[in-house]
Amino acid sequence: MQAGHGAGHDAGHNGVMSETTSGTSKGTSLPSGEAGLLARILPHLSQGPAVEVGPGDDAAVVHLPSDRLVVTTDTLVEGHDFLPGTSHPLWIGHKAAVQNLADVAAMGARPLALVVSVSAPADTPPLAFEQLSTALAERAGADGASIVGGDLGRAPQLTITVTAMGALAPGDAPILRSGARPGDVLTIGTEQLGRSAAGLALVLAGHVRIAQDRSVQGRPRPLLHDLEDPLAGEVVIWHNAPEPDLSLGWTGGRAATAMMDLSDGLGRDGSRIAAASGVDLHLDRAALEHDVRRLAPLAAALELDPWQWVLHGGEEHALLATFPPDRVPAGFRPIGTVHAPLDHRSPQITLDGDPLPGDGWDHFA
Amino acid sequence: MQAGHGAGHDAGHNGVMSETTSGTSKGTSLPSGEAGLLARILPHLSQGPAVEVGPGDDAAVVHLPSDRLVVTTDTLVEGHDFLPGTSHPLWIGHKAAVQNLADVAAMGARPLALVVSVSAPADTPPLAFEQLSTALAERAGADGASIVGGDLGRAPQLTITVTAMGALAPGDAPILRSGARPGDVLTIGTEQLGRSAAGLALVLAGHVRIAQDRSVQGRPRPLLHDLEDPLAGEVVIWHNAPEPDLSLGWTGGRAATAMMDLSDGLGRDGSRIAAASGVDLHLDRAALEHDVRRLAPLAAALELDPWQWVLHGGEEHALLATFPPDRVPAGFRPIGTVHAPLDHRSPQITLDGDPLPGDGWDHFA
Repeated sequence: MQAGHGAGHDAGHNGVMSETTSGTSKGTSLPSGEAGLLARILPHLSQGPAVEVGPGDDAAVVHLPSDRLVVTTDTLVEGHDFLPGTSHPLWIGHKAAVQNLADVAAMGARPLALVVSVSAPADTPPLAFEQLSTALAERAGADGASIVGGDLGRAPQLTITVTAMGALAPGDAPILRSGARPGDVLTIGTEQLGRSAAGLALVLAGHVRIAQDRSVQGRPRPLLHDLEDPLAGEVVIWHNAPEPDLSLGWTGGRAATAMMDLSDGLGRDGSRIAAASGVDLHLDRAALEHDVRRLAPLAAALELDPWQWVLHGGEEHALLATFPPDRVPAGFRPIGTVHAPLDHRSPQITLDGDPLPGDGWDHFA
Repeated sequence: MQAGHGAGHDAGHNGVMSETTSGTSKGTSLPSGEAGLLARILPHLSQGPAVEVGPGDDAAVVHLPSDRLVVTTDTLVEGHDFLPGTSHPLWIGHKAAVQNLADVAAMGARPLALVVSVSAPADTPPLAFEQLSTALAERAGADGASIVGGDLGRAPQLTITVTAMGALAPGDAPILRSGARPGDVLTIGTEQLGRSAAGLALVLAGHVRIAQDRSVQGRPRPLLHDLEDPLAGEVVIWHNAPEPDLSLGWTGGRAATAMMDLSDGLGRDGSRIAAASGVDLHLDRAALEHDVRRLAPLAAALELDPWQWVLHGGEEHALLATFPPDRVPAGFRPIGTVHAPLDHRSPQITLDGDPLPGDGWDHFA
C-alpha cells in the first residue's frame, strides 16, 4: 500500500462513506495520515501461502501454480455504481471483490491475489476504510485469494478499483467466449436470475435506506419504506453484495465450451457469446419462468416487468456457459440451446424463436 | 475492456479531458457508446508475444517467464493528482504508466502487462480516451509491456488506475527495501533530482497552461507565463510525464541490496529503506549540490528553496538503491552511505550528519 503525491485541494463531501458511517468514529482517534489508515487496514489482510511479498514494499510477489496469469480489473464509483446512503462499505467491498473474482472464474481459472486502489474524500471515517478492507479480504479469502497490495489516495467521491489475478492450472487452457458450438446447451450458474436488477429498481425508486452500523464486521441491513414484500430485503442485499457461486468456474465450468460472467444482462452478455462464437443462442422461456414468477409480486408492486429483470438485469455475476448436451455439470441449469446462424445473418439471441426485446446497459450510450 | 452497470446520474463537468481537448473532436463523429470508444482505443493496444488472450474476454491471459508474479497498482485523480488545464491526456497516460512500471522495476523485475481502468465524465471527448490509451501503450511498450485489458466507466472527474504486472526471471529473488547493510553505498538512478517538484511548484504558482493539441500523437507543450528560465518547460514536462530509466531496475539494479522507486521524496522514501533495513542513511550534501545548482535560478524566480525540491520532491520515479561499495553499476550515482544505527535509536536519515529538515508528502495528514 502506498500513496501518490497530490496537486489538488479539498472540497466538501457528502458521500456514502460519511453518510453510512457518520458518528461511528466517535470514541476512536482519527488516524495520523496514511500510516494510521494503513495500521487499521493491514491487520485485516491475511496473506495466503502463495504470497511471497505482501503489502508494504513497492510491489507484491505471488507464486503462481503455472506460468499462465489470468488478470482483470473493474472500478466502482460512488454516485455512478452505487448511490450515497443506499449501500454500505461492507457491501461495496464485497461487490468490488465479487465482480473481479467472477471475471477470473469465468476464464476457468482460480483467483489467487487482488490489488485494490481506494480513492476517497479526506474526511472519510477511518472505520469505513476498515470495513471496506475487511469485506474485500473476506470475500476474496472465501475463494482462496489474498489482498496483496494497493493504493490510497484522495478523490471527491469514493472510488474503488480492484484488479484480480489468478492462474490456470498447469496444462489448462482458458475458457473463452468464442468456443460455443451448435448443439451445445446454454446454461446459467444460478437458481435465480434478476435479483440484482430488482434491487436496483428498489434503490432507484427511493425505497431503500441502509441501517447505521457501528462495528467493523456487523452486517448492514436495508430499511425499506412502503414495501411489504419479504423478497425486497433479499434483492437489495443481492444488488449491493451479490453472492454467486464462483467456484463453478474452476470446477464444473472447466468442461464448458464457452463461459463468461453475467455483468450486463442475459441479452447483452448472451449476444457477446453469440458474436464471439459465431452462433445463435435460443433462450427457452419455460426455463426462465421460475425466475420471473418469484420476482413477479415485487415487480407488480413497483409496476415493472419482471421479465426485464430476468432477461436484461446486470450485475448478477453468475456464470453463463455452454456445454455439450451430455456434459452439463452440477450447479449449471439449462436455459437454452446453441445453433448455427441462418445464412447471411449475423449471430443473434432469441427467446422462444423471437428476437429478444429490450437491451442491457451501456455506460456511454 | 468492459464496463460496469451504473446507478448514477450525470453532472456538469469542466475537467482536464474537456479543457485540453475542447474542439478537437470537431469533424469526427461521436462514438456510439462503449463499443465506439473501444473501437478507437483498441487499435492502439498492440499485444506482445507473452499475451495469449488480450482485451475482449472476461480477463486477459499472459504467459510469465517464471511462476513469480510481481504486481502493483496506482491511481491518478483529476483535481488531486493533476489539475485541470495544466496537464494533457498524453502526459496523464504516460505518467500513469511510469509510476506503475517503476514499482515493478524497483523489485528487480521486468514489466510485462498492464490493465487500466478509466473513469471519466460522459462528455469526455473520444479523442482524449484515444490519446490516453496511446500514451499508456507507448510508454508501457518502451519497457516491453502490453496493455492487456481494462475497464471503462463514468465518474465526475477523470480517474485512471493502472495495475502493472511483471515477473522475476527464473531463480531471481525480489529486491526488497529491507536489504540495505552498513557499509553499502546509497545511490539514485538519475542525473537530476527535483524536477518533478519544480514543475509542480510552477503549476501551483499558476504559471502553466497547456497548448491545445489536435492530433492523436502530437506532443503537447506547456505555455509559461512570466517566466524566462529555459528550464521551466523541461521541469513542467518532467512533472507531468517523468522519464526515469526504469530498465536499471532489471539490469544493473539486480545487484542492489535494497531498492525502491522515488515516489514521495528522498527524505520520506529514504526513511522507508532505513526503517525496513534497520539502518541509518547518511546523505552527502556535496553529491546533491549539482542537482540543486541547476534548479537554483528557477527556484530564485519563485522565491523557493531548491534544496526542498531535491531532498523532498516526489514523483521522480527514479530508482533509489543501495549496493556494496564495489558493486555500484552504471546508471546509479552515489549520494550517501549506509550505517548501523546508534544504540537505542530508531533508524534515521541525515544530511552531512544533521537530521534531515522538512518532510515529504502525506495524502491524509
